[in-house]
Amino acid sequence: MRVSREEVNRVITTLNFRHEEGTVIAVIQDAETGEVLMVGNMNEEAVRKTLETGYTHLWSLSRKTLWKKGETSGNYQLVKEVVVDCDGDAILVKVKPMGPACHTGNRTCFFKVALQRNSV
Amino acid sequence: MRVSREEVNRVITTLNFRHEEGTVIAVIQDAETGEVLMVGNMNEEAVRKTLETGYTHLWSLSRKTLWKKGETSGNYQLVKEVVVDCDGDAILVKVKPMGPACHTGNRTCFFKVALQRNSV
Repeated sequence: MRVSREEVNRVITTLNFRHEEGTVIAVIQDAETGEVLMVGNMNEEAVRKTLETGYTHLWSLSRKTLWKKGETSGNYQLVKEVVVDCDGDAILVKVKPMGPACHTGNRTCFFKVALQRNSV
Repeated sequence: MRVSREEVNRVITTLNFRHEEGTVIAVIQDAETGEVLMVGNMNEEAVRKTLETGYTHLWSLSRKTLWKKGETSGNYQLVKEVVVDCDGDAILVKVKPMGPACHTGNRTCFFKVALQRNSV
C-alpha cells in the first residue's frame, strides 16, 4: 500500500483497541466478490504491519503472536481498502486473496451454513 | 425463521463461546448487497433469540445487556441466513435490514474509509 508512517499513525488514532488483549475486531472481506472470508483480531502492531506492508496481519489470541495471513500456506491477502466502524473498535479489511482463506482449504472460513430462510 | 428448539440447540452445539463474556463474534451482512453492516457479540441467549425470532439480537459488552437490533430505532434486521466459521467462534448473519444499521444514520457502521488502494 506504500502508506507513510504519518498516515498509519492517523489511522491508529481513530481506533479504540478495547477488545481482548488490546485489539480491534478485524473482518476480512473479498474486495471483488463481497464474500466475508474470516474474522480475527488486530492489535496496534498488526494494524501497522497491515497498512505498511499491504498484507493482512493479525494478532492470534490463541497463540499470543502476530502473524501474517498466509505465512505458512502462501495464501496471502493483498489489502485493497480499510474501513473503520463508527466507534473505532472494528476494522473492515477488503482484500484480494492469493488463495483460500481457511486452513481447511475452503475459500472462506464461513462455510458451515447453519440455517437458511428460503425466501430471500 | 420458525426454528425449532432442536434446531437451535444443534446450532448452539457447533459454537465455541470463547470470546469476551462468553460470546462469539457476530458479523452482520446485508444478504442482498453483501455490504458488511456491523460487528457485535452474541452470547448463547443472543444466538437463541436471533434464531427463534428471526431478528438480530446481540449481547452488548458495554451495557452488559441483551438487545434486539432496532429496538429503539425501529431498524430491525430480518435474518435470512446464518453461517458458522471453521472453528465455531464467529457467526455470519445475513440479513434484510429494515433501515440504517448505524446509530449515526449511515446504512453501515463501516463508513470511515481509512485507506484505499486505487487499482483494485
